[in-house]
Amino acid sequence: MNQVQAFNDYREKMNERILDGDNKVIKRIFNLDTNAFTDGAINPKNKELIGLACSMVLRCDDCIRYHLGKCHELGVSKDEVFEVFGIANLIGGTIVIPHLRRAVEYWDELGS
Amino acid sequence: MNQVQAFNDYREKMNERILDGDNKVIKRIFNLDTNAFTDGAINPKNKELIGLACSMVLRCDDCIRYHLGKCHELGVSKDEVFEVFGIANLIGGTIVIPHLRRAVEYWDELGS
Amino acid sequence: MNQVQAFNDYREKMNERILDGDNKVIKRIFNLDTNAFTDGAINPKNKELIGLACSMVLRCDDCIRYHLGKCHELGVSKDEVFEVFGIANLIGGTIVIPHLRRAVEYWDELGS
Amino acid sequence: MNQVQAFNDYREKMNERILDGDNKVIKRIFNLDTNAFTDGAINPKNKELIGLACSMVLRCDDCIRYHLGKCHELGVSKDEVFEVFGIANLIGGTIVIPHLRRAVEYWDELGS
Amino acid sequence: MNQVQAFNDYREKMNERILDGDNKVIKRIFNLDTNAFTDGAINPKNKELIGLACSMVLRCDDCIRYHLGKCHELGVSKDEVFEVFGIANLIGGTIVIPHLRRAVEYWDELGS
Amino acid sequence: MNQVQAFNDYREKMNERILDGDNKVIKRIFNLDTNAFTDGAINPKNKELIGLACSMVLRCDDCIRYHLGKCHELGVSKDEVFEVFGIANLIGGTIVIPHLRRAVEYWDELGS
Repeated sequence: MNQVQAFNDYREKMNERILDGDNKVIKRIFNLDTNAFTDGAINPKNKELIGLACSMVLRCDDCIRYHLGKCHELGVSKDEVFEVFGIANLIGGTIVIPHLRRAVEYWDELGS
Repeated sequence: MNQVQAFNDYREKMNERILDGDNKVIKRIFNLDTNAFTDGAINPKNKELIGLACSMVLRCDDCIRYHLGKCHELGVSKDEVFEVFGIANLIGGTIVIPHLRRAVEYWDELGS
Repeated sequence: MNQVQAFNDYREKMNERILDGDNKVIKRIFNLDTNAFTDGAINPKNKELIGLACSMVLRCDDCIRYHLGKCHELGVSKDEVFEVFGIANLIGGTIVIPHLRRAVEYWDELGS
Repeated sequence: MNQVQAFNDYREKMNERILDGDNKVIKRIFNLDTNAFTDGAINPKNKELIGLACSMVLRCDDCIRYHLGKCHELGVSKDEVFEVFGIANLIGGTIVIPHLRRAVEYWDELGS
Repeated sequence: MNQVQAFNDYREKMNERILDGDNKVIKRIFNLDTNAFTDGAINPKNKELIGLACSMVLRCDDCIRYHLGKCHELGVSKDEVFEVFGIANLIGGTIVIPHLRRAVEYWDELGS
Repeated sequence: MNQVQAFNDYREKMNERILDGDNKVIKRIFNLDTNAFTDGAINPKNKELIGLACSMVLRCDDCIRYHLGKCHELGVSKDEVFEVFGIANLIGGTIVIPHLRRAVEYWDELGS
C-alpha cells in the first residue's frame, strides 16, 4: 500500500499548506468539492464513477488516484471501474492509455 | 424542437458521409462507441451520465447534445442532469459555463 | 454593437435559466466567479487581463468575449489587450489564432 | 464552394486586422507559421498531414479547415486524409467526432 | 539506455495488467492502435511522425516516448524529429517546451 | 532550495540540448519567449502573473515552476500569488488542484 499512502500523505500535507494561504476563493472551492459528491439525485457511488471518468479524460493522475480511493471505499467493483476506464479511453482516446496504466497500478495497490 | 432536430439531422447525414470514406479505423471507433454504452456492470443510464459529464469537462457542445438526448430518452430527471452539470463545472471550472448555457438551452428544447 | 449585444443578451437569459435549476454547487460557482475578480492584492484591471489570457489559452470564445467586455469597461488600452493576446498566442500556440481572429473582431465591435 | 470561400475571406480579413495591431510577438508568430511548413527534412505535404492531425486532436475546426485547404492544394488524396482522420480520432478519442463531421463536410466542399 | 528500458518494461507490464481486466472496449482500443499505424495510403514512417506530433501537442510524455521509440526503429533522422518538434511547439505553444526537454533527453538515450 | 535548483539545472541543460538541434522554428520560439515578457504596455510583473495563471489553467507543472521563480525574483507577494492561484483554480476547475499542491510546495521552497 506504499503508493496509496504516499499519495494520501502528500495530499493531506499540501492541502493544509494551501488552506494556510487563507485565500477565500480557494477555500470555497475546497468546500464545494466536498459538497458536490454528497448524496443527492445521484448517489455518492455514481458520482464517484463520474468523477473518476472526468479525471481520466482530463488526464490528471492525482485526480484519478483520489477518485479510485473513494470508489474503493464505496465498494465499487473491479468490473465497474474497468467499464469507466473503457468509456474514458474511448471518449478521451489512446492519449489516455498512459494514465490508464498508472490507474490500474494504483487500483491494484488499493487491494481490490 | 428545432435545435434538437437540426443536430440529429446533421449528425446522421455526416455520419453517413464519414462511413462512406470506408476507413477501417474510423468504422471500428464508431462501432465501439455503440458498444461502450450498452448494459454491463454499470447500467446504460449511469453510463450516459458519465458520457455527459466527460463531454462537458472536455467542452464539446455536440457531444453534450448527444448525451443529453440519450439521457432524455432514458428518463433521466432534470435534477440528475443538473447534478452532473454541477460536478462537471466544478471539476472543469468556469471555462465550462458557456457550454453549460448551451446545454441548458438544449435540455429545455428536449422538453424536459 | 450587434455582436456584443447578442452575446450579453444570450448570456443573461441563459444564466437565469441555469440559476432556475436551483443547484447549490452551480450557484456557488457563479458567486465565486464574481468574488474572484474583485479588488484585492491584485487590482480588478490586472485580474481581468489574467482572466482574458486564461480564456484565450483555454480557447473559449465566450469567455474571451466576457473578459474583453470587462477590460473595455475598466479602460484597458488596445496595446494592453494586444500584449495579452501576444502572450496567450505564444503560450497556447497557433491553435489559438482562430480565437484571436474572433477576439479582435469583438474588440473592434466594443468600439475601442 | 460557399463554406470554403467564407472561411478564406474571414481569415484574410481578420489576419489583416490582427497585424494592424502591430504587436511584435504576434507578427513573429505569424511569420513562423509560414516558415514551419516549408520544405525541409520533411516535405510540405507530409508537414500538412502533421498539421491536419494536430489540428484535429486539438479540436480546432478553423485549423482543420486551413490544413484541409492546404492538403487539397498539394494533391493529398481522400484516402490519405481519411487515414489522418482515423489516427486523430483514435489518439484524440470520440470527442473528436463532431470535428470529423465538419471536416468531412469541408473536404466535400473543397471538391475532392 | 536506462530510461528507454524503464519505459518499455513498465509499459509492457501494465499493458498486461490492463488486458487482464478483460474489458472488451479497452481490448479493442488496443487492437485498433496497432492497426492505425500499419502501412496504407500513408506509410508507417509518416504515420509515426503524425503520432509523435499529436502526442506532443497533447502533451503526453509517455506517448511521445512511445512514438520516438518507433521513429527510431524506422530510421527517422534527427532533423526529421526536430522538424516535428518545431511544428508541434509552434501549434501547441510554449506550454509544450517542458515536454520537448524530456523528448530530447529520451531521443538522446535512444542513441540517435 | 533543492527542488528549485534541480528544476533550474535540468531546464538549463536540456534547453542547451534543444538549441544544439539547430532547428530554426524552435530557436525563434525560444527568442520570442524572452521578448513576450519584457516591459511594454503591461509591466514585467503583471506579465509574469499572466504567465503563471496560463501555466496553471493549462496544468503544466514546469511552466508553473518557471513563472513562480520569475515572480519571486520580481518581488511578487504571497497574497498576489495566491490570488492568481484562486483565479486559475476557479477558471480551470478542481482538476487544477494537484498542480496547486505542487505549486505551493515550490513557492515554499523559493523561500517566500
